[in-house]
Amino acid sequence: MVAMARAVVCLFLWLSVCQVRSSHINVEMNRTIQNLLQHYKIRNVERFDGKPVFSRNALAGKMEMKKLFMGAVLETYEKLIDKMLKQLPTSSPQTTGSNDGPASSVTAADASGDVRTGLKYILNKIKMLRQHRYREQGVLLQELQTLQHIQMDKHVVQSKALWELPWLYEEASSLSDEMQRRRRRRRQTRRLKSQLSG
Amino acid sequence: MVAMARAVVCLFLWLSVCQVRSSHINVEMNRTIQNLLQHYKIRNVERFDGKPVFSRNALAGKMEMKKLFMGAVLETYEKLIDKMLKQLPTSSPQTTGSNDGPASSVTAADASGDVRTGLKYILNKIKMLRQHRYREQGVLLQELQTLQHIQMDKHVVQSKALWELPWLYEEASSLSDEMQRRRRRRRQTRRLKSQLSG
Repeated sequence: MVAMARAVVCLFLWLSVCQVRSSHINVEMNRTIQNLLQHYKIRNVERFDGKPVFSRNALAGKMEMKKLFMGAVLETYEKLIDKMLKQLPTSSPQTTGSNDGPASSVTAADASGDVRTGLKYILNKIKMLRQHRYREQGVLLQELQTLQHIQMDKHVVQSKALWELPWLYEEASSLSDEMQRRRRRRRQTRRLKSQLSG
Repeated sequence: MVAMARAVVCLFLWLSVCQVRSSHINVEMNRTIQNLLQHYKIRNVERFDGKPVFSRNALAGKMEMKKLFMGAVLETYEKLIDKMLKQLPTSSPQTTGSNDGPASSVTAADASGDVRTGLKYILNKIKMLRQHRYREQGVLLQELQTLQHIQMDKHVVQSKALWELPWLYEEASSLSDEMQRRRRRRRQTRRLKSQLSG
């Protein structure tokens, strides 16, 4: 029990430090996550098993690529929180203010309501960020997902894909050439600049 | 029958024009696709129904985004051709040179062998392009696909994702800020350059 309390205090402290350091997560959002973590409790050995849900590998690349990955992470959070909301027990009529029911059931209903409110608040924050700052990435992610649903065993699809191949193969090769040329040009400009300033 | 022959001639002419225009598709690749299209026949109304297998919408964006989409298109072609190969009848021992069997079965076996060889050749060309020019995109596509397989109904996953949210939300917001700053700076530089040259 003491160990558990200590872990909770550590968690609160860690989240508070995060909040102080960060500038985009307000007090309300931070507190909501802390409260939700009280409901979605797991053991420390499970939390710190070295396998985060969201890998950080893709965040080491170029800005455009990082932003695309972040767009996908936000989209995944939306789906996840939506699922968490659906898993909550269906809300019963508000009992606050009435003293008829047993105290424990009122508390349980309150807790479930709190979790629902918290999840909805977090979901809204994520949706706002994605809609206002990650719209462009959303369009490409949609196109990428469409590729996953191509009906590959259909004869018509196979034939049409073969027909489209020459143009796409040519485009893919030219695009790669063009990017290599740009990279070379940028390198030359940098070298020239450093020679001029040197 | 005449209409069919005319359509085939048109197709050959169109592919030949494509080949003349392009510089990355060699004669062998072009001929192979033409031969395969003879096997994977469909009606013109099916081919030209205005619904291409691969949408061109994603190719109107920025270079990095285009290249990522192209990487995904090549990956899809690999899966598709792999499926087409698996759908072919299993190859029987070579009958060429032997006059025992009926002529029609020899022709059928030859045709099936040709299709297999053709598909394998095209598959190899696509694999080579992807491995040599689209390796970087492959890594990110892999990370994006991993997000699709997150086990969202697991309590542990939900809790860990909530715990990771503050850092990721902060990172997503900062990244977007940074990209906006860069875009503003580029715009200012362009304006300054045009003023200096004007």
